[in-house]
Amino acid sequence: VTASPEADLIASLRALATHEGARGLLDDAAVLATDSGQLVLTCDMLVEGTHFLSEDPPADVAWKLVAVNLSDLAAKGARPVGFLLGFSLGDAEWDREFVAGFGVALRGFELPLLGGDTVSGAPVGARTLAGTAIGLARGTVPARTGARPGDHLWVTGAIGDAGAGLALLRQGAVEPASLIERYRAPRPRLEAGERLADRVEAMMDVSDGLLLDAARMAQASGCALTLDLDSVPLSEAWLRLRGDSRTQRLEAATAGDDYELLFAASPDSASDLLELAEELGLPMSRIGTFATGAGLSLSDRSEPVALPPNLGFEHRR
Amino acid sequence: VTASPEADLIASLRALATHEGARGLLDDAAVLATDSGQLVLTCDMLVEGTHFLSEDPPADVAWKLVAVNLSDLAAKGARPVGFLLGFSLGDAEWDREFVAGFGVALRGFELPLLGGDTVSGAPVGARTLAGTAIGLARGTVPARTGARPGDHLWVTGAIGDAGAGLALLRQGAVEPASLIERYRAPRPRLEAGERLADRVEAMMDVSDGLLLDAARMAQASGCALTLDLDSVPLSEAWLRLRGDSRTQRLEAATAGDDYELLFAASPDSASDLLELAEELGLPMSRIGTFATGAGLSLSDRSEPVALPPNLGFEHRR
Repeated sequence: VTASPEADLIASLRALATHEGARGLLDDAAVLATDSGQLVLTCDMLVEGTHFLSEDPPADVAWKLVAVNLSDLAAKGARPVGFLLGFSLGDAEWDREFVAGFGVALRGFELPLLGGDTVSGAPVGARTLAGTAIGLARGTVPARTGARPGDHLWVTGAIGDAGAGLALLRQGAVEPASLIERYRAPRPRLEAGERLADRVEAMMDVSDGLLLDAARMAQASGCALTLDLDSVPLSEAWLRLRGDSRTQRLEAATAGDDYELLFAASPDSASDLLELAEELGLPMSRIGTFATGAGLSLSDRSEPVALPPNLGFEHRR
Repeated sequence: VTASPEADLIASLRALATHEGARGLLDDAAVLATDSGQLVLTCDMLVEGTHFLSEDPPADVAWKLVAVNLSDLAAKGARPVGFLLGFSLGDAEWDREFVAGFGVALRGFELPLLGGDTVSGAPVGARTLAGTAIGLARGTVPARTGARPGDHLWVTGAIGDAGAGLALLRQGAVEPASLIERYRAPRPRLEAGERLADRVEAMMDVSDGLLLDAARMAQASGCALTLDLDSVPLSEAWLRLRGDSRTQRLEAATAGDDYELLFAASPDSASDLLELAEELGLPMSRIGTFATGAGLSLSDRSEPVALPPNLGFEHRR
């Protein structure tokens, strides 16, 4: 943990979050018990210039605002029940395209728009968009904190595609489309999240980089974690583009924007998890093991590997 | 309704809000039924330079972010159960003072901080803060749309104090403190809202100007409304400062930032409402009458008065 004014500020906000539903602000979402189930609430913001660029297609920004919030719900095993949009008015054409894309996202996720706020006044190039997603969990709501020594670390889907897609876009490339699509239009793993919730000990989504998010889960759970770089799942498109060197694997594991589910499960659950993966048509890969102690270690084909200087995007969010 | 790109945009967002809980985005808050009661959700944003100034005390900005969201809950008769903060990092000292003031507001309202998001990257002078407040209503959740011909229009407290406070601040004045306090630290009428919810036909808060908000209630309810300027409640401090001319009364009725409750009630409820006002120690004043038809009319001591060109802050929110 870096001692910075930002870290101090976040620590002082955590000190205010004394309600058990806040989970110490250490989790992806807040949880409020109701007689209808557990209500899961998350609020993610996107800032122009940081989370999206002025030249990004507005429809993609809208999709991303919805998807990143729903990914937090997926990580808590919650089914989305509504969305509030905090929208900062700007260029009329941009706004129109945003709303069109927002409509596509709402329909795509069958997500009711319940309310929000529309404000004007932000200077050009400084839009801040806010989304609040509300979900309902009928069963267990896994936290980040539940991993135990001996548990395995798993991840859904493939890692690094979105990072490769972003790098391609920055180079002005438009192919491979599958990688660019994974950056532009992430798919929150909602069904997998719901089905996994009562099978896992801890769960979160991978948004800031696999290594960083895995280190956060280990820290929150009070465990050490060894992550096997050679087990990190990579897509065929990614492998064709980047090859399979250790350097490239480290790149994938720190790139972020994956919006896959990262979870800790008892070794006893392995066959059940693989069956579920088969049923859902979504790969689930075992990529590490928790142990007593603290800290993240990396290995590659059983050989220890030094941690890269940046595990992910520490201060982006 | 002005035909502007903003109005078009808001209309296209409304077209997306088909869920009944969204109330067509015409209400102050969204309503979701749960077995524990009706969950009321609202999201209000504050933009630097529009809703607050860079030189405003950060603690006041924090209070206002909480208070404006809770005022929406009050207008729906909901008791606050939690808050999500969307915070845009900037100057470290400003951030520290904001969080200190935010803590004061949370404690003042006994409001649990449940979660949120902290982002960096907004340019200097362009912070956007987002608040999401969650409330629970055990009984009726009044909408804006329920006023019927023959109903009376009522308002709590006094109107214009906050507007006078803001004008004083702009002149560099620090007194009368009561008026400045009403601008800097609005008090959402939470208890009154809960007690009024099942006694009223329609309710909303007064945030953008009494005349504008009253016109909105009339329009949403499909009624005409005559508002009696001479019945608009003014505080002693306001009257001492401004006197009692028609011009000044119009000023009070269009100034905004009042965060009082505006409601429609059957004429039969009048004595009950006055008893409740007595019990709560909060004045409730009858200021108008709904009728069949459409549009807002003004009178002053039974004499018709032309509507001012601006009824309030149309595009601020």
